[in-house]
Amino acid sequence: MTTTQSPDAALDAHLDKTHDARLESYREFLRIPSISALPEHAPDVRRAAEWLAHALRTAGLENVAVEETSFHPVVYADWLHAEGAPTALVYGHYDVQPVDPLDLWTSPPFEPVVVDGRMLARGAADDKGQVHAHAMAAAALMATRGGFPINVRYVFEGAEESGSEGLDAWLTANRDRLTSDVAIISDTGFFEGNIPAITVGLRGLMYAQIDVVGSPVDLHSGSYGGAVQNPANALAQIIAALKGPDGRIRIPGFYDAVVALTEEEHAAIAELPFDEDEYRARRHVGELVGEVGYSTLERRSTRPTLDVNGVWGGFQGHGTKTIIPAHAHAKVSCRLVTAQEPHDIFVKFRDFVLEIAPPGVKVTVQDLGGGRPSHTPVDHPMTRAAARALEATFGRAPVFIREGGSIPVAASFESILGLPVVLLGFTQPNENAHAPDEWMSLDNYEGAIRAIVATFDEIATLGSSHRE
Amino acid sequence: MTTTQSPDAALDAHLDKTHDARLESYREFLRIPSISALPEHAPDVRRAAEWLAHALRTAGLENVAVEETSFHPVVYADWLHAEGAPTALVYGHYDVQPVDPLDLWTSPPFEPVVVDGRMLARGAADDKGQVHAHAMAAAALMATRGGFPINVRYVFEGAEESGSEGLDAWLTANRDRLTSDVAIISDTGFFEGNIPAITVGLRGLMYAQIDVVGSPVDLHSGSYGGAVQNPANALAQIIAALKGPDGRIRIPGFYDAVVALTEEEHAAIAELPFDEDEYRARRHVGELVGEVGYSTLERRSTRPTLDVNGVWGGFQGHGTKTIIPAHAHAKVSCRLVTAQEPHDIFVKFRDFVLEIAPPGVKVTVQDLGGGRPSHTPVDHPMTRAAARALEATFGRAPVFIREGGSIPVAASFESILGLPVVLLGFTQPNENAHAPDEWMSLDNYEGAIRAIVATFDEIATLGSSHRE
Repeated sequence: MTTTQSPDAALDAHLDKTHDARLESYREFLRIPSISALPEHAPDVRRAAEWLAHALRTAGLENVAVEETSFHPVVYADWLHAEGAPTALVYGHYDVQPVDPLDLWTSPPFEPVVVDGRMLARGAADDKGQVHAHAMAAAALMATRGGFPINVRYVFEGAEESGSEGLDAWLTANRDRLTSDVAIISDTGFFEGNIPAITVGLRGLMYAQIDVVGSPVDLHSGSYGGAVQNPANALAQIIAALKGPDGRIRIPGFYDAVVALTEEEHAAIAELPFDEDEYRARRHVGELVGEVGYSTLERRSTRPTLDVNGVWGGFQGHGTKTIIPAHAHAKVSCRLVTAQEPHDIFVKFRDFVLEIAPPGVKVTVQDLGGGRPSHTPVDHPMTRAAARALEATFGRAPVFIREGGSIPVAASFESILGLPVVLLGFTQPNENAHAPDEWMSLDNYEGAIRAIVATFDEIATLGSSHRE
Repeated sequence: MTTTQSPDAALDAHLDKTHDARLESYREFLRIPSISALPEHAPDVRRAAEWLAHALRTAGLENVAVEETSFHPVVYADWLHAEGAPTALVYGHYDVQPVDPLDLWTSPPFEPVVVDGRMLARGAADDKGQVHAHAMAAAALMATRGGFPINVRYVFEGAEESGSEGLDAWLTANRDRLTSDVAIISDTGFFEGNIPAITVGLRGLMYAQIDVVGSPVDLHSGSYGGAVQNPANALAQIIAALKGPDGRIRIPGFYDAVVALTEEEHAAIAELPFDEDEYRARRHVGELVGEVGYSTLERRSTRPTLDVNGVWGGFQGHGTKTIIPAHAHAKVSCRLVTAQEPHDIFVKFRDFVLEIAPPGVKVTVQDLGGGRPSHTPVDHPMTRAAARALEATFGRAPVFIREGGSIPVAASFESILGLPVVLLGFTQPNENAHAPDEWMSLDNYEGAIRAIVATFDEIATLGSSHRE
């Protein structure tokens, strides 16, 4: 990848001069273990919020505040002095995924190190690295120009990896003060081969937990085996019934709201330079398997899924223990596409699970949250502006892709704030998000800062009437 | 239950006099956390062996030794001066099951307390209580008579809860010096309602672990979901396919060696005073379910089973983590009956699991050990002798039952040493073996000591020619 120098000599000079301090600041941010899903890390999540607020204040942004939600805080900041210019709402998240299995990390996840041009740490890519690039772009603009070419509002969330709990309520409550022309979400990445990309589709998410309870205590498998339902066997039966050998999900009505790909969309996906072998090799995946009738790229980005994220119950130790577990549990999530609505899918999921639950056990299904799928038209002026900025920065026109992951807030910006969404992300596809040894290419990170500035400059040329 | 005083006044006086010291000794034995399955408790298992050897030596037994095996030691002792009388080999085990879930215990599992006439502790019933009763019976005989009415050999094992690993090899190596007329195994209990019982059938055991591996690291369920096989889903599919909704196990050839119950056996089981509601209520089991065509009592003692003992994989924490687990695992065991052979069943199990394993994951199956089923004829003279002793001690003729549990060593005594086996046990059916709040009735414990002495006296009347 070639990073073209920006035509802004002052920016270049600033970025060169501040390079070492910037990397140290990035590392400092990554050292805070802001795992939003684990209650014991709640103080760390808050510490990360305070750290980020301080960085934004130091950059010269205004109205910087750590604002409460029902869960982890939102960090807000703005700069609104570009009269007549459009306003961009920039979104990222400063919370991270849990780090287990710890033993598979090359170095401790919260002790960031640079190895071979990569920053290695939990959150380096998803999403602290991108949030940090935004803070550094803001600092660079304030330092070299004393302001922005457009108006900007920053909304950095602390609960994205926990289903963005509390954010929708916060957005709704603050709708009036968040008036903008576009939402720029930086939580995605480049395409295979590190080709600059703009994501124009994201899958949604339905996340549930199945709890199967037999007797209140483990039973002796000799005294009770054969005479009672085994919760772990029952759970396996339920899970197995959710999907067929053809990869189709068997929940009645599950596909009702899925809009089929058009011939054009099929063709556009087929044209993307996707290397299946590289995709497999990256995580040492053996054979690729999935829903019949779709290509791998279609399966991972345009089709809904059903995956067990975790399962547990009974004896997990060394050796043997002859029990019938008192209870067994599974976390199960579905990636959703097009018009699938998370709560509707949860209800269908729950009803089907309860319907197929075998006798002799008590089965309950909990809703652990979700998010709607999101889509932006490829030809939206804001998307085109971001595409020009990427091409100018990285020397290559971006591809337009659909991502398999979910950023529930993308749909929230559309539905609650009425904003078009541009998914402007800079990580590489093999950055180990949600896995051990997460990393961010420092070339992409530095390029991101320039591309963000360039995007603001491009948006400035559009004027302020581009809200749809 | 009425415990009839034995006609032996000296024994009565001795047991009265030593009552308090005996209970304290019992508690001391229970305080040692001799969990054989957990490597970190290996020193405790050895400490329990040494403790037991010391108690047997103190009782006056001879050739007391803590003997090495490939796993935990065997405690051996004997008294062989009853010339012309039969020789009984007495078996029990001083190791115990793990104690999790700890939070369900009323008091700590290794701090024994007496509550309402019950000794409450891990191992109180299974099997340290019965081993201790044997040691106390030996001490009482030596103290009041200066010897035994028969010859006795004690073989106390430290690995019964871990598949008796190492014992068969030890028995084989020591076959010549273990010559006896009968094996008396005290590791079973009375029938429902605390009716004295002799167990004439035990189920065998096949214990396996299924390991399903996808990629070497957890995958992001957005980037990979839909395109790869999920090891936890695959595991559920495998487990679900092992048993049908009719409760029949679907492994080809699984039932080949199962000998059907005769009409007489069906009738004898139907006549046992089994209270299904009591059996359910004891562990707060809801609905009883099992193989079609069999009663609950038949299902839990005369039919083979297949149960998941534990399952794990992926994210088990609070909240959500959107991953495809790198691997998923299950411990699965089968209780075996009549002529089912553990290794043969393991091979059939493994082959079927590998055959039905879905594509895209690597599946392996480990053999974690097992034991053959065991049966003793109801009319064997040794069984009859034990029955007379039970009736004399407890004032009621015992019932002859089949137990659902497994004592692999019973089959080993039959096949390696060629001995008939008498399963002479004293616990109550609801004693919480393998579960929190395990307990032993002190009435049964004290009665056990008298019944053991009475059994030796009854066997003495048979002479030494009753080896079959």
